[in-house]
Amino acid sequence: MAVPHRHNFGTHDFRSVARALTMVENDLSGADELLKSLKFKKEVPVIGITGPPGAGKSTLVNDLISAFTDKGHKVAVLAIDPTSPFNFGSLLGDRIRMSTHFNDPDVFIRSIATRGSLGGLSAKTIEMTDVLRASGFDYIIVETVGVGQSEIEIAGLADKTLVVLVPEGGDEIQSIKSGLMEIADAFIVNKADREGADLFANNLKKMVQQKHADIPVFKTIASQNDGIKEVVDFIYAQSSVKNNRKEFLLAEKAYKLIQQKRMANVDKGSLIQEIRSGLADGQFNLYHFVDEQLIKLNRLD
Amino acid sequence: MAVPHRHNFGTHDFRSVARALTMVENDLSGADELLKSLKFKKEVPVIGITGPPGAGKSTLVNDLISAFTDKGHKVAVLAIDPTSPFNFGSLLGDRIRMSTHFNDPDVFIRSIATRGSLGGLSAKTIEMTDVLRASGFDYIIVETVGVGQSEIEIAGLADKTLVVLVPEGGDEIQSIKSGLMEIADAFIVNKADREGADLFANNLKKMVQQKHADIPVFKTIASQNDGIKEVVDFIYAQSSVKNNRKEFLLAEKAYKLIQQKRMANVDKGSLIQEIRSGLADGQFNLYHFVDEQLIKLNRLD
Repeated sequence: MAVPHRHNFGTHDFRSVARALTMVENDLSGADELLKSLKFKKEVPVIGITGPPGAGKSTLVNDLISAFTDKGHKVAVLAIDPTSPFNFGSLLGDRIRMSTHFNDPDVFIRSIATRGSLGGLSAKTIEMTDVLRASGFDYIIVETVGVGQSEIEIAGLADKTLVVLVPEGGDEIQSIKSGLMEIADAFIVNKADREGADLFANNLKKMVQQKHADIPVFKTIASQNDGIKEVVDFIYAQSSVKNNRKEFLLAEKAYKLIQQKRMANVDKGSLIQEIRSGLADGQFNLYHFVDEQLIKLNRLD
Repeated sequence: MAVPHRHNFGTHDFRSVARALTMVENDLSGADELLKSLKFKKEVPVIGITGPPGAGKSTLVNDLISAFTDKGHKVAVLAIDPTSPFNFGSLLGDRIRMSTHFNDPDVFIRSIATRGSLGGLSAKTIEMTDVLRASGFDYIIVETVGVGQSEIEIAGLADKTLVVLVPEGGDEIQSIKSGLMEIADAFIVNKADREGADLFANNLKKMVQQKHADIPVFKTIASQNDGIKEVVDFIYAQSSVKNNRKEFLLAEKAYKLIQQKRMANVDKGSLIQEIRSGLADGQFNLYHFVDEQLIKLNRLD
């Protein structure tokens, strides 16, 4: 095999970055070589932002981008939109809400539709994040709607996971899924000017203290850029906590990729055809057939 | 590789058949060689019996066994029990209900627990049916509770699929899932002495006529051996309908087996370990790692 080309993108070469992402997202020819050739020059923190719809995640992301770029950092945002592939309006909506930075040369924003896997990470999120990690950005923000499985995935992908919540009635604090406790590196109570916000935040702190020692609870009003500094300081602070979830997520991903590639030459259509002719003589042995297929595949490897 | 042993079981050697089934069901060492060596001497009709709980399937199976053995045929029954693996009482119950034939030298009965996959075929149903097909029986009956996916699977496995129903109020005929129309080779309205049975059967016939041309509707009272002769004649009748579902089911199964074998040397635990050490230096490239794993696997093939 020829030595693969090295793909390294400058942050100002956004068209190349965008093209690489499209290539990887759609698994176009060359995507595999591109991914294998990615060079990671330094640790690029990946910040996961997750939480229920309407929690103000996009507004908060907007604030974080401002904070990063004010310090001269370059930021990439991957916004994962759980709406149906047909609902491009909402995708556009996300972009519009983050539009403050739409023409900022230090900010790259990309939306991914999740194509049906409701709220989950897109099948290509890890790959796309890796492209961004190799593209000269200082911070990468991955924003997802916190629904079910996606939260666990985002926690594996991100170096720090921020769970954004909005104040609800004090009693409803119980309704916070205990799973969130497992994945949150910090809680952010947004829309903290709402009635009951202090009670909500205090109850959350109590819950955290009861179960874990070390998850800070921040209060923000993202729409007014209020409380953002503390969140940013938390992001900048060196974390001594090792993220074990990362190796589990990557092992899962590696397993899936290995499986995909090991099965790439197996075609169900051909199997059906071959089985159909096999069955015709009434002596067809499925397990012998499988063995023959394996021998054929091994020859192709 | 050495030439595998030939495993052929006489119908009177039930202990060998039972041992082979256990081997295959639990994927014990030697199961694979055993399956590959199965010799099918003739076409052995597989009769699928499916329907809701309480429709009287086991009683009907009992009647069919009597009809077959009366003509000197040897019969094997695979009864797939959807109850939890902890509920062995119900498993036993099935056997007791079929106890007329419990000591019959021409009848072999085996229950499989479905281990959680509610109502679906056991993961090893195809393999176990193949063992029975190679063991000298004249007919094989596979009885499943018709819930969701299992119905489609049974239709692929069976040469003839009998869907057993009980009379309900005439209006409720609509509640028969249209999926049943796709898989039934015949409908059996059991407990036909119930009030409204004729109306139910007639409505069913109308439905069949509206959608398909050629699915007979039989009425039985299995507990009194009533109406069974017509069903047996239908089973004995040569079917000119080719069962396309069989090659689809077998292709799915072959795909799964190939995947299992292609991935047999991939261990998630080791992947996690290797990824953990890879991550330590900050330059870890997942796609390059996957490539290395593939090269290692190809060497093992």
